[in-house]
Amino acid sequence: MSGRHFLQVPGPTNVPTRVLHAIAQPTIDHRSPEFAALTREVLSGLQTVFGSSDPVVVFPASGSGAWEASLVNTLSPGDRVLAVENGEFARMWAEVARRLGLDVQLVPGEWGRGVDPALIESSLTEDSAHQVRAILIVHNETSTGATTRMAEVRRAMDRVRHPALLLVDTVSSLASIEVCHDAWRSDVTLSGSQKGLMLPPGLGFNAVSAKALEASRSARLPKYYWAWEPMLAANAAGFFPYTPATNLLFGLREALRMLNDEGLGRVFARHRRLARATRAAARTWGLQILCGAEDECSSIVTALVMPGGHDADALRALAYERFDLSLGPGLGRLKGRVFRIGHLGDFNDLMLAGTLCGVEMSLACAGVPFTRGGVDADMAELETV
Amino acid sequence: MSGRHFLQVPGPTNVPTRVLHAIAQPTIDHRSPEFAALTREVLSGLQTVFGSSDPVVVFPASGSGAWEASLVNTLSPGDRVLAVENGEFARMWAEVARRLGLDVQLVPGEWGRGVDPALIESSLTEDSAHQVRAILIVHNETSTGATTRMAEVRRAMDRVRHPALLLVDTVSSLASIEVCHDAWRSDVTLSGSQKGLMLPPGLGFNAVSAKALEASRSARLPKYYWAWEPMLAANAAGFFPYTPATNLLFGLREALRMLNDEGLGRVFARHRRLARATRAAARTWGLQILCGAEDECSSIVTALVMPGGHDADALRALAYERFDLSLGPGLGRLKGRVFRIGHLGDFNDLMLAGTLCGVEMSLACAGVPFTRGGVDADMAELETV
Amino acid sequence: MSGRHFLQVPGPTNVPTRVLHAIAQPTIDHRSPEFAALTREVLSGLQTVFGSSDPVVVFPASGSGAWEASLVNTLSPGDRVLAVENGEFARMWAEVARRLGLDVQLVPGEWGRGVDPALIESSLTEDSAHQVRAILIVHNETSTGATTRMAEVRRAMDRVRHPALLLVDTVSSLASIEVCHDAWRSDVTLSGSQKGLMLPPGLGFNAVSAKALEASRSARLPKYYWAWEPMLAANAAGFFPYTPATNLLFGLREALRMLNDEGLGRVFARHRRLARATRAAARTWGLQILCGAEDECSSIVTALVMPGGHDADALRALAYERFDLSLGPGLGRLKGRVFRIGHLGDFNDLMLAGTLCGVEMSLACAGVPFTRGGVDADMAELETV
Amino acid sequence: MSGRHFLQVPGPTNVPTRVLHAIAQPTIDHRSPEFAALTREVLSGLQTVFGSSDPVVVFPASGSGAWEASLVNTLSPGDRVLAVENGEFARMWAEVARRLGLDVQLVPGEWGRGVDPALIESSLTEDSAHQVRAILIVHNETSTGATTRMAEVRRAMDRVRHPALLLVDTVSSLASIEVCHDAWRSDVTLSGSQKGLMLPPGLGFNAVSAKALEASRSARLPKYYWAWEPMLAANAAGFFPYTPATNLLFGLREALRMLNDEGLGRVFARHRRLARATRAAARTWGLQILCGAEDECSSIVTALVMPGGHDADALRALAYERFDLSLGPGLGRLKGRVFRIGHLGDFNDLMLAGTLCGVEMSLACAGVPFTRGGVDADMAELETV
Repeated sequence: MSGRHFLQVPGPTNVPTRVLHAIAQPTIDHRSPEFAALTREVLSGLQTVFGSSDPVVVFPASGSGAWEASLVNTLSPGDRVLAVENGEFARMWAEVARRLGLDVQLVPGEWGRGVDPALIESSLTEDSAHQVRAILIVHNETSTGATTRMAEVRRAMDRVRHPALLLVDTVSSLASIEVCHDAWRSDVTLSGSQKGLMLPPGLGFNAVSAKALEASRSARLPKYYWAWEPMLAANAAGFFPYTPATNLLFGLREALRMLNDEGLGRVFARHRRLARATRAAARTWGLQILCGAEDECSSIVTALVMPGGHDADALRALAYERFDLSLGPGLGRLKGRVFRIGHLGDFNDLMLAGTLCGVEMSLACAGVPFTRGGVDADMAELETV
Repeated sequence: MSGRHFLQVPGPTNVPTRVLHAIAQPTIDHRSPEFAALTREVLSGLQTVFGSSDPVVVFPASGSGAWEASLVNTLSPGDRVLAVENGEFARMWAEVARRLGLDVQLVPGEWGRGVDPALIESSLTEDSAHQVRAILIVHNETSTGATTRMAEVRRAMDRVRHPALLLVDTVSSLASIEVCHDAWRSDVTLSGSQKGLMLPPGLGFNAVSAKALEASRSARLPKYYWAWEPMLAANAAGFFPYTPATNLLFGLREALRMLNDEGLGRVFARHRRLARATRAAARTWGLQILCGAEDECSSIVTALVMPGGHDADALRALAYERFDLSLGPGLGRLKGRVFRIGHLGDFNDLMLAGTLCGVEMSLACAGVPFTRGGVDADMAELETV
Repeated sequence: MSGRHFLQVPGPTNVPTRVLHAIAQPTIDHRSPEFAALTREVLSGLQTVFGSSDPVVVFPASGSGAWEASLVNTLSPGDRVLAVENGEFARMWAEVARRLGLDVQLVPGEWGRGVDPALIESSLTEDSAHQVRAILIVHNETSTGATTRMAEVRRAMDRVRHPALLLVDTVSSLASIEVCHDAWRSDVTLSGSQKGLMLPPGLGFNAVSAKALEASRSARLPKYYWAWEPMLAANAAGFFPYTPATNLLFGLREALRMLNDEGLGRVFARHRRLARATRAAARTWGLQILCGAEDECSSIVTALVMPGGHDADALRALAYERFDLSLGPGLGRLKGRVFRIGHLGDFNDLMLAGTLCGVEMSLACAGVPFTRGGVDADMAELETV
Repeated sequence: MSGRHFLQVPGPTNVPTRVLHAIAQPTIDHRSPEFAALTREVLSGLQTVFGSSDPVVVFPASGSGAWEASLVNTLSPGDRVLAVENGEFARMWAEVARRLGLDVQLVPGEWGRGVDPALIESSLTEDSAHQVRAILIVHNETSTGATTRMAEVRRAMDRVRHPALLLVDTVSSLASIEVCHDAWRSDVTLSGSQKGLMLPPGLGFNAVSAKALEASRSARLPKYYWAWEPMLAANAAGFFPYTPATNLLFGLREALRMLNDEGLGRVFARHRRLARATRAAARTWGLQILCGAEDECSSIVTALVMPGGHDADALRALAYERFDLSLGPGLGRLKGRVFRIGHLGDFNDLMLAGTLCGVEMSLACAGVPFTRGGVDADMAELETV
């Protein structure tokens, strides 16, 4: 295949050359002074993107490891956790909790909406005995393209004065949609490297509140690899309790510098703008945007529903083979019914335009009923801003 | 700037990651056995892309050096050469000849057409004394987007039985449009690395016929760096008479492998297809394609004429600043009047689609009068093939 | 600092440029056909280096994660495991087991020797009730430079017909010292990427026997991230149950190809040879080699004991600052008393010679009492082979 | 072959990873504002390393092109130039002049010494008619390892008040041994990229005095590619008259930053120190250092004479095959009689130590008579400084 692949799944995202070159630097001794300086720079830079004055812990792991870490550090076997199933990642995180031996209260949610703050409020109100020890919320549900209004979730928790820990998955939002660990009073904000941070997969993160750290001291789920305390102790000196993923940390340093150069506010605005242009195209095509509320539409991924009888995976296969374009599949119960356009990370207007041309041509070639003009609508949006 | 730059000048072209990594390999000793194997592979591979069984000489130089080399090896001070000025590169090559002390017969040509074989025929017919020692033809005139029908030029020369050397500039056609050094009986076919070969600039090439080599033995223009004979002698053993541009040769090896993997026939067809789609967009926009004959339209670059009173360079500046898109300027007498879209090298459908979206949006933002729908026409073309 | 750093800790090792470039390739969709081909190639190649016809599981994790995985998949809370403390890594793995809630029978061993097969035999003989569910052995103890004779350990287990699982840590031996998962009838052979595999840290491995897999079905330690079964199920189709560390897998593919090109037998012989030359230097210097048995001396690292009253870490700091040489520190109870020379991975005669010159000069500059001539002895060894 | 190759020819030198990654950045439009900033930075940085307030011209060419450029810009056919043949590169540059049609007065010099200032003085004194238009001096003669005392050469010229242009080849000295274009009142100081500048080959340089520029206006050797005037005119705006070698310029920018970070004074001192240690080894081995005067011994290369009857190229072949070490051959009349150790560029103590171990072992394996202990002497030297 000639030319560049269009990697428009909602993660892993396109890794910039600067970051790829950074991870291709010669590996160094993780016990050297040079390494300690690297550690300090990335840990400090991560706090900024997490909106956190709390420490951030970095694991050699993917985001699923960050899920496990958030649970084994804070909870004990049989502890109750509350989760709302509004998408496949919310469902899977709850499943992780279940497998680890927790008592999961999984409340049905709407696939295509953020978690309803009122639902949290009512669920917690019912829990007058405060048996719920932690609430699990996926900030940006990658499977549906819906973002939860986290500030409102926190206000709902506050209104009922519930002491549960708030665990927030920001795997697909961090560094693309504003994450406010401090302002949300999140107890664990977890994430991964392969989305807005523009890195390959392989790093998992936990931003850890003082309350979460306190909880970890009595939490009885067994833990070694994910344990925060030895990590924080070693980090204080610039090191890690076991061998860290050195070269990905080189990449992380570079990515954090790039984000800082662009300015986080501008990064978020860029993602909102490109998402808006994507939705303009989708509306013209006449394809339903799975996310049912404009103010919850994700800045980083748009899930589109296929017209009845048409298979999303067949469309994706055509886009891949004919136009060298990777689109995200429908996950879980959405399999075959939706496809997802990732528009995040190291991304700009013409990459989006090329992507949407690829989608429009694929729809045509696949014989999917749709209305032409989506790309025109996208361009109209991009011209006016 | 986030995301990838769209480098759509007609060279340098987008260098594939494989080639960039190849040139980033550690430099080796240019007198080692390992180097000799490299030399042999690239010289053999170059013959294939030149359509040549004659040797190809590689200079550490850009294409302008390959111009100079073609002249100083074959000609003596005061020798007459015939050139047709059908574009800026044709004009400049003739100017090189003039500065080197040759007697240049520069026949006016049409900017926007290939060299007319009939014009060559009539010019040579007039030269019954055979004073013209060499004819200079630019195969693909990058400034206008017009390709010369070389086989017909050779037939015109044959009809008048003129013994002049045929020197052909394939800087912007090699490895994108079929080059037939042998079939055209070209005496020097010259080129550079930064176009269809998908390399950074820095290598110049001369494919050298036996007749040209014979001419070099009596040619009296002074030469050292460009001299073919020591080069061919050293190449025979896998080496070079002076330090070669080792890392660019690493890249050349990789690029030749990529071209071979895709298959040259498919490479040429891909370029024709993308050029056709570009012209479909241009016609819808209502912008004049500078090249006035469909069968001479270049597969690698399309020059578009700005509507009267509108400055092409202002449009280009807007495209660069707002959409991170580099377009080619009008050169020489075309300055400000045309802009050029490069569509060559490591390039595919969605890269073209993104590029044309960038052009369409730039036209709109710059207030240039045009008709919407160019991208739609491009997509229609790409869908049908 | 000008010139190349000498990274001679016993891992991470020097990553070859080919591997660094491989990990710098653009990240791809981990659900694409292209990715499935990558998965298949690396899983098959890993079996070869593990000497295994059993499947190998790959985690986005460092070697410590591979420790945890080997335990949580096979054991239940309170299960007894037997380990011999013959070095810091043996001690730490046992500590991991303890933290995960296992009943660890930690038998004292000799720091500077491999695990004594007779000690395993006697310990198991005492366990007539077969309470020991698993035996943990570190094949090559990186902290002391001693290799355990695994085949003899297996024979000892066989003699007493003990049914315990055999878990073997080959983090620092894999792809440098022969590992024979099948021949040893190892149940879990675990490793990491950053030693003999010549990769940056970030991948952990478990080769899993049928018996271990059977054990995993009833093992009750909680597990999600490390669970083998979903991993093996997904791997069968070329995929992973959660996002894998794509770019490190690119590097792994390249490293496996390099090992295959050199030939594993030659790789092992090269390591033995360089280790022998290192010991020749050490003996001339008059520094005690910590490993007390020639046939257990590690091929990948040599730990040297400092003369009384001299601080190994001061020597290492001097080597780092003055000669840009990283040496391994004494770990655990050896802190300050030994330093370690790594001689593994992408390594050759002159890299070793430069390293040993660095050690000899550092000893001199640090005022450590020693006998000159170590490098001469090293050269004599390297010349004769 | 496992491990790193030791590339110890006196150029091309080991290219640092930072520079390799720089040249692997995506190629940009050489007419863009971004490119103009690149041009300005490298041209300014080059002035610093040339010790020049005069402009420096950059050609896509190797050092041989810089030779040709220095001549065709300043001279006319038949002009007399004076050169002293004290090595192969001095001889070859004179040969270039001869081939270009100049009248070369080639004075015999001593192979193994710098150019004798007294010889220049006497030669110029004889030229009372001032027929000599230019004097060609190789600052550091790479074939013999002898450096000319340029300040004394200039003083000699001044004493006889000769108006000839002074052309100085600093191909192998620039950025390793101090070059003082201004202080020497050099008219053309020429160089290349692949030595002290730590780049791959492919860039040639001319620093051009006002007097040289004045001479270029009346010089009649034909020129196009090498012509300074269009180059300087284009450079003033940040551009080039023809396509420059963009990616090598990326590398040049990085290399200049690295040199600036280390500090030129420290760079020169480092080279002197490593050269001294090399000579200490050679003296112990009992091999004759070709350069016969300590104060003219090159900081960047040491040429060693083989004992009678022993072939230097056989030794080099052994070093290459057995120890993966590239040494420089004897050139021209020295072929087979000397080998050369390059110790320049991105180079440090342990790289030198490894190199000298490779030489010592090769001498032993090749059966060359020599005295052991060279590496010991090298270490003694490196320890004391």
